[in-house]
Amino acid sequence: MSFPREPGKFYRMPVFFGPNPCPRWTPEGVVQDFAREPVRSTLGTRYLTDAKALEAVLPEGFRLWGEPIVTVEAIYMTGFSWLAGGGYNMFDVKVPIIYASKTEGDVHGTLLMARWESLSDPITTGREELGHNKLFCDIPEVSDFNGRYHTSMSWRGFPFAKLWAEDLVEQEAPAGNPANRGLLSWKYIPATPRPGKKWGEEADANYATLTPPAWSGVKTTRYLAGKGGVEWARPTFEQLPTQYTIVNGFASFPIVENRGAYYFWMTGGASGDDTYRLD
Amino acid sequence: MSFPREPGKFYRMPVFFGPNPCPRWTPEGVVQDFAREPVRSTLGTRYLTDAKALEAVLPEGFRLWGEPIVTVEAIYMTGFSWLAGGGYNMFDVKVPIIYASKTEGDVHGTLLMARWESLSDPITTGREELGHNKLFCDIPEVSDFNGRYHTSMSWRGFPFAKLWAEDLVEQEAPAGNPANRGLLSWKYIPATPRPGKKWGEEADANYATLTPPAWSGVKTTRYLAGKGGVEWARPTFEQLPTQYTIVNGFASFPIVENRGAYYFWMTGGASGDDTYRLD
Amino acid sequence: MSFPREPGKFYRMPVFFGPNPCPRWTPEGVVQDFAREPVRSTLGTRYLTDAKALEAVLPEGFRLWGEPIVTVEAIYMTGFSWLAGGGYNMFDVKVPIIYASKTEGDVHGTLLMARWESLSDPITTGREELGHNKLFCDIPEVSDFNGRYHTSMSWRGFPFAKLWAEDLVEQEAPAGNPANRGLLSWKYIPATPRPGKKWGEEADANYATLTPPAWSGVKTTRYLAGKGGVEWARPTFEQLPTQYTIVNGFASFPIVENRGAYYFWMTGGASGDDTYRLD
Amino acid sequence: MSFPREPGKFYRMPVFFGPNPCPRWTPEGVVQDFAREPVRSTLGTRYLTDAKALEAVLPEGFRLWGEPIVTVEAIYMTGFSWLAGGGYNMFDVKVPIIYASKTEGDVHGTLLMARWESLSDPITTGREELGHNKLFCDIPEVSDFNGRYHTSMSWRGFPFAKLWAEDLVEQEAPAGNPANRGLLSWKYIPATPRPGKKWGEEADANYATLTPPAWSGVKTTRYLAGKGGVEWARPTFEQLPTQYTIVNGFASFPIVENRGAYYFWMTGGASGDDTYRLD
Repeated sequence: MSFPREPGKFYRMPVFFGPNPCPRWTPEGVVQDFAREPVRSTLGTRYLTDAKALEAVLPEGFRLWGEPIVTVEAIYMTGFSWLAGGGYNMFDVKVPIIYASKTEGDVHGTLLMARWESLSDPITTGREELGHNKLFCDIPEVSDFNGRYHTSMSWRGFPFAKLWAEDLVEQEAPAGNPANRGLLSWKYIPATPRPGKKWGEEADANYATLTPPAWSGVKTTRYLAGKGGVEWARPTFEQLPTQYTIVNGFASFPIVENRGAYYFWMTGGASGDDTYRLD
Repeated sequence: MSFPREPGKFYRMPVFFGPNPCPRWTPEGVVQDFAREPVRSTLGTRYLTDAKALEAVLPEGFRLWGEPIVTVEAIYMTGFSWLAGGGYNMFDVKVPIIYASKTEGDVHGTLLMARWESLSDPITTGREELGHNKLFCDIPEVSDFNGRYHTSMSWRGFPFAKLWAEDLVEQEAPAGNPANRGLLSWKYIPATPRPGKKWGEEADANYATLTPPAWSGVKTTRYLAGKGGVEWARPTFEQLPTQYTIVNGFASFPIVENRGAYYFWMTGGASGDDTYRLD
Repeated sequence: MSFPREPGKFYRMPVFFGPNPCPRWTPEGVVQDFAREPVRSTLGTRYLTDAKALEAVLPEGFRLWGEPIVTVEAIYMTGFSWLAGGGYNMFDVKVPIIYASKTEGDVHGTLLMARWESLSDPITTGREELGHNKLFCDIPEVSDFNGRYHTSMSWRGFPFAKLWAEDLVEQEAPAGNPANRGLLSWKYIPATPRPGKKWGEEADANYATLTPPAWSGVKTTRYLAGKGGVEWARPTFEQLPTQYTIVNGFASFPIVENRGAYYFWMTGGASGDDTYRLD
Repeated sequence: MSFPREPGKFYRMPVFFGPNPCPRWTPEGVVQDFAREPVRSTLGTRYLTDAKALEAVLPEGFRLWGEPIVTVEAIYMTGFSWLAGGGYNMFDVKVPIIYASKTEGDVHGTLLMARWESLSDPITTGREELGHNKLFCDIPEVSDFNGRYHTSMSWRGFPFAKLWAEDLVEQEAPAGNPANRGLLSWKYIPATPRPGKKWGEEADANYATLTPPAWSGVKTTRYLAGKGGVEWARPTFEQLPTQYTIVNGFASFPIVENRGAYYFWMTGGASGDDTYRLD
């Protein structure tokens, strides 16, 4: 009997026992309603960095879309049907980007440079299905210290990014840019080498992906804006062995101008099942 | 600039900041010594199951090698240089297998049906580089309750497998079978579909891998054997949404005959860098 | 120099470095506003049990107040100034009680039979200052599985109480009973024995306490009611060594009649600084 | 029925369901063998500090015994019968001390200034029964990074003390000082105030305790000594709200001279049931 046995289903390793739930597939009887789920809150900040520093790390085909603005967000989600009502947290680093597609020409979107998550299961499904740059870290709930909001990401007890916001005032949520076609990412999965080949000579996946935005069902219920920022650590190998290059990479982008902070609440989302390979 | 920039290095997503440490690559100045690392202890049990039940779930090309013996082990490791001296725990399910390779003929080895790990970083590197069936769960230290050893794997507070051993007596470590060529696995990475294609129609990776055993440096320092076993839960979707099919799958293999338990301590290991694709 | 050095402050062990923050004391510059903090949500259920079973475990001076109704609640709090804006979770078991005070006569209130908390710091301050029956366990966030709310308390991976609610409908929050004077508890701290004495012969504290309710600042923002319940495990010593008698104790109270479940959201609270010894 | 119902047993809050296990009491059938349990490893360092700085914080009756040497240790224990074979970790700060007892005269011992533990249950029993200065924090396993041993204590993601050792060589374990009568502590439990009294006016417990050493059963199986040290953070209230005064207190003791580090393994222990109140 060959594998996968039921094309159209979402298999991941291990494949022996059939498909396993992910945001794009749930077993019969488990209804997902992305007009309602997940319920989320997002604490974020933006800053202008140096265009050259940022462009120096981009893979071929990517270039900046307008100002080199780095967006850093801690996102808290709950109520996912595919997790039986549970949730998890994310910590994102994003920049506005244009990808020069051979088939579609310039695609404007948001490059998701890294997405840390507090749960391993969506890391696996997101990396392998969507090609998103997911990593694990601890993402504690936001503390509200008399109107000063703060949290701190850490890995095995080493805090590598502090995020805060204060003096926030209620305002209307900014509209999304309709020219933005979604989250862009670079999917890379190394090939396990064939005999005679070396690691890195071939890849199982090495292409761009696009995840269209979840405009439809999403509803922002409250939006606050004000001051805030992020402080990146500059970890040694001993402090952060598996991620020190990534955190030092982000820390190396200069904060040329702080563009403030925000905190908002939203319902609804998307499964990401319209994600596709962008050549 | 194209990617990867330095062939031969171990890149994983995100690719922007160069290679990141894994067991197969550490930065300059970080020496790995697999004759010494990791230091590990293993609590394990074996049972005879039904050959037909087991064979029914195997991908094409795999068949049982001798008796259908299921080995279940909790493994505790520390002292990895690639983790700056830290470690993590594993929970394995393995069976003796023959893979009918088109290029090598019958390859005798151990099918690693599932390997839960307590840390996300080796899950990612192991899935993407080696094609190992890695999943996350909590794997608490073994309790020694006056000579009764016990532990219990859980995911988000739901315990799905209890492992125990008792009446253990010191004995010589059994020799490895020289005919066993190592860990066999089935690497499967779904393709992010191109426009017009459906999920599951194509795969980025869909092949067998072989990880040769770490015979050389490994040294068993103590070996105990006696009674013991494993008890699998039969979780509902609500209890274990992302892994209920896998745990119920293992629970569905009948325990025809308990083959006892063991607890041993070992030093040394291997990076897995001799893992290769087996067509 | 004698201790405590500044009477009126809240000292706890270790005493060397002065008072440490608790809900009843924060350092200069840290303002608490219990009209606003904490922000909390509560998932609860009630059931009628057997009066005799419940009364059999009460210390002298306590008797049931009306029907033997057991209330079980999981409570999630955030925004505490004394925790720099952070929070923690609680899991309560409460019954309506009358305490026959020698000085005040019958005091009607709620006996807080156990309050598990997910953070050690408030456990210590609550036990030692208020005499509350606080214990540690993991109290995961409530999952909302398409309108079925569920969570499960556990200790070191062993789940001992499942709580759920479903078919909830919006309704007005029930008014508190003005005859209820607050939370009653029995504070017991064993004496470290003097030479020649045995453990248990003397106590450092052995008296009732009363914590008046936080009527003033508290505001219920949303209240849902419907079906639900709690399921107690019956753990062995091996499963729950430090708390198995307590959980089995609660499990031994028969559920004579299920009285439904509720889920509500509230702002505001109280420091508990008006708690006093009730003789 | 009055409480406690069975004098001689070890009751703690909540008292309703009888005694609960602690190192000094286990239920029938659960045998403790302190010649064998726990199994422990200890990573420690010592430094000379300033006598005046240290004496300034001591309660009345305590004075330094010889040089002002601060000992800081991370201790990892497993195999406790009272925890069904499990364990927990400790992080200690200790100094040599003389307590001027009214009944016994000068008592020479070790002042346990703080003992952080990674589990809430022994914190409660140790504070309330022994009067030990126990607090909660995360105490990760020691990493062995090619012979550099390191770990870092943290509370809710904020690391407050780093401990390390390197260039360790095997040597004989130093003998204990027979003049040392054990661990001295100051037990302080505030009284819940009677009506008309203020917090801090009275105490339920306010006395010294002595825990004799576990000389008998303890056996050191390996002892390494070399270089190392501890680095204390200087946290703000926002970083460490419930313990910032304690950590800053230890950080304020100057490190006048580093006295090296050690790492040792030991079996056996003591229940602490010979602890007594020292007036």
